[in-house]
Amino acid sequence: MSELSHLDDAGQVRMVDVGDKPATERLALAEGYVYMKPETLKLLTANELPKGNVLTTAHIAGVLAAKRTDQLIPLCHSLPLSGVDIEFAIDGIRSAVHIKAQCRVCSQTGVEMEALTAVSVAALTIYDMCKAVDKHMRIDGIRLLKKTGGKSGDFHAG
Amino acid sequence: MSELSHLDDAGQVRMVDVGDKPATERLALAEGYVYMKPETLKLLTANELPKGNVLTTAHIAGVLAAKRTDQLIPLCHSLPLSGVDIEFAIDGIRSAVHIKAQCRVCSQTGVEMEALTAVSVAALTIYDMCKAVDKHMRIDGIRLLKKTGGKSGDFHAG
Amino acid sequence: MSELSHLDDAGQVRMVDVGDKPATERLALAEGYVYMKPETLKLLTANELPKGNVLTTAHIAGVLAAKRTDQLIPLCHSLPLSGVDIEFAIDGIRSAVHIKAQCRVCSQTGVEMEALTAVSVAALTIYDMCKAVDKHMRIDGIRLLKKTGGKSGDFHAG
Amino acid sequence: MSELSHLDDAGQVRMVDVGDKPATERLALAEGYVYMKPETLKLLTANELPKGNVLTTAHIAGVLAAKRTDQLIPLCHSLPLSGVDIEFAIDGIRSAVHIKAQCRVCSQTGVEMEALTAVSVAALTIYDMCKAVDKHMRIDGIRLLKKTGGKSGDFHAG
Amino acid sequence: MSELSHLDDAGQVRMVDVGDKPATERLALAEGYVYMKPETLKLLTANELPKGNVLTTAHIAGVLAAKRTDQLIPLCHSLPLSGVDIEFAIDGIRSAVHIKAQCRVCSQTGVEMEALTAVSVAALTIYDMCKAVDKHMRIDGIRLLKKTGGKSGDFHAG
Amino acid sequence: MSELSHLDDAGQVRMVDVGDKPATERLALAEGYVYMKPETLKLLTANELPKGNVLTTAHIAGVLAAKRTDQLIPLCHSLPLSGVDIEFAIDGIRSAVHIKAQCRVCSQTGVEMEALTAVSVAALTIYDMCKAVDKHMRIDGIRLLKKTGGKSGDFHAG
Repeated sequence: MSELSHLDDAGQVRMVDVGDKPATERLALAEGYVYMKPETLKLLTANELPKGNVLTTAHIAGVLAAKRTDQLIPLCHSLPLSGVDIEFAIDGIRSAVHIKAQCRVCSQTGVEMEALTAVSVAALTIYDMCKAVDKHMRIDGIRLLKKTGGKSGDFHAG
Repeated sequence: MSELSHLDDAGQVRMVDVGDKPATERLALAEGYVYMKPETLKLLTANELPKGNVLTTAHIAGVLAAKRTDQLIPLCHSLPLSGVDIEFAIDGIRSAVHIKAQCRVCSQTGVEMEALTAVSVAALTIYDMCKAVDKHMRIDGIRLLKKTGGKSGDFHAG
Repeated sequence: MSELSHLDDAGQVRMVDVGDKPATERLALAEGYVYMKPETLKLLTANELPKGNVLTTAHIAGVLAAKRTDQLIPLCHSLPLSGVDIEFAIDGIRSAVHIKAQCRVCSQTGVEMEALTAVSVAALTIYDMCKAVDKHMRIDGIRLLKKTGGKSGDFHAG
Repeated sequence: MSELSHLDDAGQVRMVDVGDKPATERLALAEGYVYMKPETLKLLTANELPKGNVLTTAHIAGVLAAKRTDQLIPLCHSLPLSGVDIEFAIDGIRSAVHIKAQCRVCSQTGVEMEALTAVSVAALTIYDMCKAVDKHMRIDGIRLLKKTGGKSGDFHAG
Repeated sequence: MSELSHLDDAGQVRMVDVGDKPATERLALAEGYVYMKPETLKLLTANELPKGNVLTTAHIAGVLAAKRTDQLIPLCHSLPLSGVDIEFAIDGIRSAVHIKAQCRVCSQTGVEMEALTAVSVAALTIYDMCKAVDKHMRIDGIRLLKKTGGKSGDFHAG
Repeated sequence: MSELSHLDDAGQVRMVDVGDKPATERLALAEGYVYMKPETLKLLTANELPKGNVLTTAHIAGVLAAKRTDQLIPLCHSLPLSGVDIEFAIDGIRSAVHIKAQCRVCSQTGVEMEALTAVSVAALTIYDMCKAVDKHMRIDGIRLLKKTGGKSGDFHAG
């Protein structure tokens, strides 16, 4: 589209064209935490919160969100994920729920945003299910742990 | 539906029925941070990142996400938000983008999740726009700052 | 828009305009069944199916679907549901899961379609979670049980 | 949120807060055209196009799009439309399909974008249904014809 | 993600990872019925129902629903369907509309849920279009008729 | 599904089955205009409109819409776009914003509708951002400029 002079190069946004890259196996693993009061964590573990089963609900919300990452994050590509795996662990020391999400696809671009979106929406869902009893929760430490596939090389957080 | 014996009370989830509560003015303010390398923050501030205008894109993603909170967070009600306001500040000391989102509605239930969702998706979008140059970003400190309206009383984070 | 002659009256579709009706409290209750082999029902009850917790997943899918009925059923209005309640019972005699969904709203139109959609999508989700072990399931008997509010009068299935 | 200095006032976007405006009856009427070859128009009128019933499909697509305007147009509010009315007329002189869409709501803000979105998506759907036989179609003349309700006064296109 | 101890194995849900399966041609055919009063069926056949063309509307709703099955059924994969075919027949003996939907894809997993979702949402749409004149309809007999492709072998309902 | 007699051939709609076509590189380029008053165009160029940065918002809306074309246009296939490129130019002579959108995919079917949808929703977004100061805008001249790939041969508008 070279015949059009860019109106405003500084303001432009670009969805990267990945059409010339080969499709390869991609994997991304992300994590995050929802910090809460020890009493809240206890209610969650005992499955006694008023809205019901927190972790199954968060798991499903995270999977659904991973599958619609392209609608949430404007410049992400639509990817047919082959797998989305989410796990939760109770971290009594930090008084937090630890969330890990792993996404896989065979595609021309990576799935970091899918894994991070799964963690974020799972965390928000935990927040929602617990907020009637705790207004001081905090979602923290959402980051990429690992990424494989693609020509920029593998990545492992230190 | 009392004639049905609950199959599994522990596994049940419940979308709270708010039909008997009065509609009142509700407001929620949430915040969060995206930590990144100082070089990344410099590129962002100079609007020199490869995908383009980071903060406008993040702003729009956050607004759109707030409006579909009921689809992302399974047990949230559908609320016709009267306003969504998102602001970004560059925090050079922390080497982070600080995000604040405020939502308003006249409704039978509050808008905390809408404000937190706006912050989270804006943060993920910032992450996406910067990830080509920085794989060590971290989304942190997502929490509720203020909440007014509703019978449970106002809330201000300390 | 009377100045336009209808091209094709037979082919026309109409989303009814409810703007002149008063908003009143509306409730609808619907039900349905997923018939399956007794062995499948046993695995479901024991929570031993390969995809995990069937009924919580179906519950969440049903609630999410009820909230997007206006996007699935073309001529339905967008309604801000005040409550969605779904219950499951194991019916050993019929070898089926019995699903009931109740929706409430204060609105100018009823919520039958929301309740029926919740039942249908919960049933499809149960099907999906069990289909690895049973290809002969059948979704049956989806109908309206009760409807109150609105000027056409209350309805109770006989 | 006055304590935050705007990072970049020029780049800011704003979803207007309508929370302090009264809800009033709003109506908007929009129109547009899909120009096509006379042969194409003849096939459309005779219902002989390969994908089937063009105008009913376009009608439904327009209604569905009107109901999700808030997801398509980033800074639009979510509005519970009370009615969406779409009409088509064959304009043999112009060799075009003429589309009119009218939306109604009782709300704090107007429904121009909903009516224009209904026209646009109906036009795109007509294009899609006819494109196998005509690659020279053109969507034209999409504009607001009338708008009533709201404090800025009524509007009628000249 | 073996380093994380599962919090609650019984409550876990799993979206199966299909990344290691080969992509093959998959087809699924499903059916269902909407039972209604003979008078209602007569109005439907004569295209005299107040909301308009029932079967075209139901067809479109079914196709759109098949394409978003991954958003409705939490643990379904996103599949780029190559075809969705829906057919309706009037069954005067049963006083019902008979719905058949067939989906095709070249993928690592099957399309049963897409075909069943198309049938279910088409049935719900028929219900919606007829409910002004008949409150005693029933959606029944939704089941898989045929499935080919994939290593578990072909399936044909007896 | 030949055993089912078509109820109503004239009313049938068909999503074309593309499963037997080979996947090839496809590209489509579309354009359109938003005509507005010279004063409005001046405010847009100076970035002084009340809702903020018009073109970045329109760009993002267009990209997001291209990615959900299959949900907006009922009989379009779901396509994993490899690239979406949108450009804007100020046309002072016509007093209009000129929009061009290009989509690419490797697929069994073309991306004309994706490019046209990107243009249309970008145009609607420009309209929305400017409508507070100009009620006489017009969206015009939306058409296909170029299409390559696929067995029907390349197309270039004259």
